[in-house]
Amino acid sequence: MIEKDFEKLLDVGIALSSVRDLDELLDLILSEAQRLTNADSGSVYLVEGDKLIFKVSRSNTYFAKWGEAKTRQIFKSYEMPITKGSIAGYVALTSSPLNIPDVTNLPKGTEYSYNPAFDKKYSYKTVSMLVVPMMNNAGKIIGVLQLINSIENGNTVPFTPNHQKITMSLSSQAAVAIQNAKLNADLKNAYLDTIFRLSSAAEYKDKETSNHIKRVSYYSRLIAEKMGLPREECELIFWASPMHDIGKLGIPDSILQKPGILTDTERKSMQYHTLIGALILKSSKAEVLEHSKIIALTHHEKFDGSGYPQGLKGSGIPLEGRIVALADVYDALSSKRCYKDPFPEEKITAILKESTGKHFDPEILEVFFKNADSVNKIKDNYQDTVKDLENVINFENIRIADLLE
Amino acid sequence: MIEKDFEKLLDVGIALSSVRDLDELLDLILSEAQRLTNADSGSVYLVEGDKLIFKVSRSNTYFAKWGEAKTRQIFKSYEMPITKGSIAGYVALTSSPLNIPDVTNLPKGTEYSYNPAFDKKYSYKTVSMLVVPMMNNAGKIIGVLQLINSIENGNTVPFTPNHQKITMSLSSQAAVAIQNAKLNADLKNAYLDTIFRLSSAAEYKDKETSNHIKRVSYYSRLIAEKMGLPREECELIFWASPMHDIGKLGIPDSILQKPGILTDTERKSMQYHTLIGALILKSSKAEVLEHSKIIALTHHEKFDGSGYPQGLKGSGIPLEGRIVALADVYDALSSKRCYKDPFPEEKITAILKESTGKHFDPEILEVFFKNADSVNKIKDNYQDTVKDLENVINFENIRIADLLE
Repeated sequence: MIEKDFEKLLDVGIALSSVRDLDELLDLILSEAQRLTNADSGSVYLVEGDKLIFKVSRSNTYFAKWGEAKTRQIFKSYEMPITKGSIAGYVALTSSPLNIPDVTNLPKGTEYSYNPAFDKKYSYKTVSMLVVPMMNNAGKIIGVLQLINSIENGNTVPFTPNHQKITMSLSSQAAVAIQNAKLNADLKNAYLDTIFRLSSAAEYKDKETSNHIKRVSYYSRLIAEKMGLPREECELIFWASPMHDIGKLGIPDSILQKPGILTDTERKSMQYHTLIGALILKSSKAEVLEHSKIIALTHHEKFDGSGYPQGLKGSGIPLEGRIVALADVYDALSSKRCYKDPFPEEKITAILKESTGKHFDPEILEVFFKNADSVNKIKDNYQDTVKDLENVINFENIRIADLLE
Repeated sequence: MIEKDFEKLLDVGIALSSVRDLDELLDLILSEAQRLTNADSGSVYLVEGDKLIFKVSRSNTYFAKWGEAKTRQIFKSYEMPITKGSIAGYVALTSSPLNIPDVTNLPKGTEYSYNPAFDKKYSYKTVSMLVVPMMNNAGKIIGVLQLINSIENGNTVPFTPNHQKITMSLSSQAAVAIQNAKLNADLKNAYLDTIFRLSSAAEYKDKETSNHIKRVSYYSRLIAEKMGLPREECELIFWASPMHDIGKLGIPDSILQKPGILTDTERKSMQYHTLIGALILKSSKAEVLEHSKIIALTHHEKFDGSGYPQGLKGSGIPLEGRIVALADVYDALSSKRCYKDPFPEEKITAILKESTGKHFDPEILEVFFKNADSVNKIKDNYQDTVKDLENVINFENIRIADLLE
C-alpha cells in the first residue's frame, strides 16, 4: 500500500468509530470499501448463529438505474446457511479472503459456486469479486464484506492484490466498529426493556397491561416525529414517556382502585401521583430521566389551564407533557379495560375534537388525526392479549413453570 | 511516516476501539503513545468544562523506581484551568501541538512556561516534551496527550517531526475512542440510575427509601466480589438486585401495610410478590433482566429449604438469590425504619450467626463477616437522610418548587 492508502484507511477508521447506529455503520463500511477499490457493487453479511444475514448492499449501476430507495427495497434482508457452497459462506467458514477475477469462469474443482440468480433477474453482469471475512480482535468471524466488479476506465477488471490488502485492513476496523455498535444496541435495548417493564409494573394495580405503556410511548414518538421535532428529541420522548405514571405507586389502593367516583379529597390525593412521579425522577444527570420528570409532572395539565398540578396553560405546558397527555387519553379510550370495551373510533374522534383547545393542544391533535393510519398500526402491533389481561387481574393465575421458561 | 508506522497505527486504532472502559482506554492510549515515540513518561488530560483534568500518567523511570501502584498514587487526579500559562493549557486553547526540545530552555517571550514542581519533588529531569491536542470528528478539543523525554540509546533526545506526526494521528483515533467510552459510560449511568429510581419507587409504600435499594445492591456486589466471582457476574448481580422486590407492586395495601402480624392467607398473598416480580421480568433478551427475574423469584428461599415460593434448598437456590437474601435481611436489620431503630451491630451478628445454614448459606455469611469494614463503608455512604424518610412517609410534604430545581 502507498502512503495515501494508509492515510485514507486511518481516516476511515476514525469515521467508522464515530458511527454508533448499526445500519448507518454498515452502509458506511460498504461505501468506503467501494471507494477504496472502485467496486461497482457490494454487500455486507453478518453472522448470526449458523447463518449469514444479508444486511446492506450498494450498487452504482442500480442506484443510477433505479435510485437508492428502490435498490434497497429489491435487495432486502435475506439469509443463507454458512456452507462452503456459496462464496460468502466459503469465506465465512475458512476465514480467508477470495479474490476472484471472473466468477463465470471458476477453475474446475472449486468448492464454491457463483449463484447467478440475481444477475439474471436484474440484468447485471457480475465478473470480478473480492470477498473478505470481517474478524474481531479475538479472531472470531462476525461478517463478510463482498465487493463486485472493480471498474477501471469504464471497464470491469479484477481486484488487485493492493485492493485486497486495503479491504482486509478495512474489514478489521469494520469488525470492531460493528461489534461496538451491536454492544451499544444491546445495552440500549436492555435499558428500554427495563423501562417498559418497571414502568408498566407501576400500573399493575391500575389493571393496565404492559402494552398500554408501550402504546403510549409509540404514540408519543409518532406525534413528536410528525410535528417535525429533531430525531434525538423524538427518541427522548419515546424513552421518557413510559414513566409518566410512576407516581401512582404512592397512591393508596383505596383511592387508586375505588370503583365509583372519587370524593374531592380523594381526587386531590390521586392528583399527587404527578408530584410523586416527579419526586422519584428529579435531579438526575440522565437526560431521559429529566424528560420523564417533566412528563410525570405535566401530563395532566390541560391546554386551557384547567389541569393539574400547576394549572399551566397553552405553550406554558412543556411540549412533551402536551404530547403524552393526548397519547395517554387516546389509549385509555381506544383500548379494553376490565371495566369497559374499547370505544368505537367515531366516538373517540368526537371526544377528542370536542376537547380541542380545552384539554388538548389543537396543533398536536391535528397532527394526530392526520396520521390515523400510523396510530392504528401501533395499536395493532401492541394489542393486549387475553393472557396479559388475566395475569394483571389475578395474580393467582401465575404458574411457576411459566416463570422458569 | 514509513509503512511500519502506518501499520502500527492501524493496529492501535483497532485496539483502542475494542476498549470500552474509560480508565483502561486512557492507559492504553498513553502506553501506545510512549511505545511509538520512545517516551519515558507521559500523561493524559481530559477537558471537563473550563478545566483540564489530569487523568492518567505513566513513567518508565518511576515505574522502575517505585512500581506502578505507588506511581499512580503519587500522580493522582488533579485539575488545572485552561490558560495559556501552562503547556497543556496552551495546547488545549490553541488546538496546536507543541514539540519542545528542551523545556528548561524556552525561547524568550514564550507565552507558556514549564512548571518544575513535580521534577523537583520527585527528582526527575524533564527535558523534551511533545504535547498534542486530542480533537474529535467535529474538531472539538476533548483532551491533551503529553509525552516527556524521548529516549534514544539511553539518552534523552528531542521528539522528531515523525514522532509528532504519529502522535497526532494516534490522538485523532484516541479522541473518538474516548468519546465513545464516555457515551457508553453515560448510557450505563443513566440505565443504572433508572433501575435504582424505578426499583425504589416500587418500595415506596413499604416506606423504604431509595438508599435501601442502593445498599442492597452494593452489599450484593461486595459479597459476589469477595466470593471471587468473575467481574462481569458481580456487575450483573449489582444491576439486577435492585429489582428484587418489584413484585410488591402487585400486593394490596391492606396486606403490604398491615401494622400487625399477617394471617396465614395474607402471608401467602404477600409471598406472591416473588412470583409477580418474576412475571414482570421474565423472558427478556437482556441478561440483567434475566438475572433480576431469578433474584426476584428466589430471594426468599432459605438454605434449609424452609423458604418460598419453591422451597429450594442449599445450592439448589441460585447463587444470586442466596446473596441478595442476606444483603436484604442485613439491610432491614441495620437501618432505621419508621417502626424501628437500627439494631446494634452485636445483635445483628447474633441473629445472622444463629441463621447460619438455616436461613443463610454459611459460605456467604462467612465472606460477609470477613468484610465487615467494607460493609460498614457502604452503609455510611448510603445513609438515609431525615428528608428521605419524611418524603417517603408523607407525600403531602412534596413541594413543587423542589421538583423544578
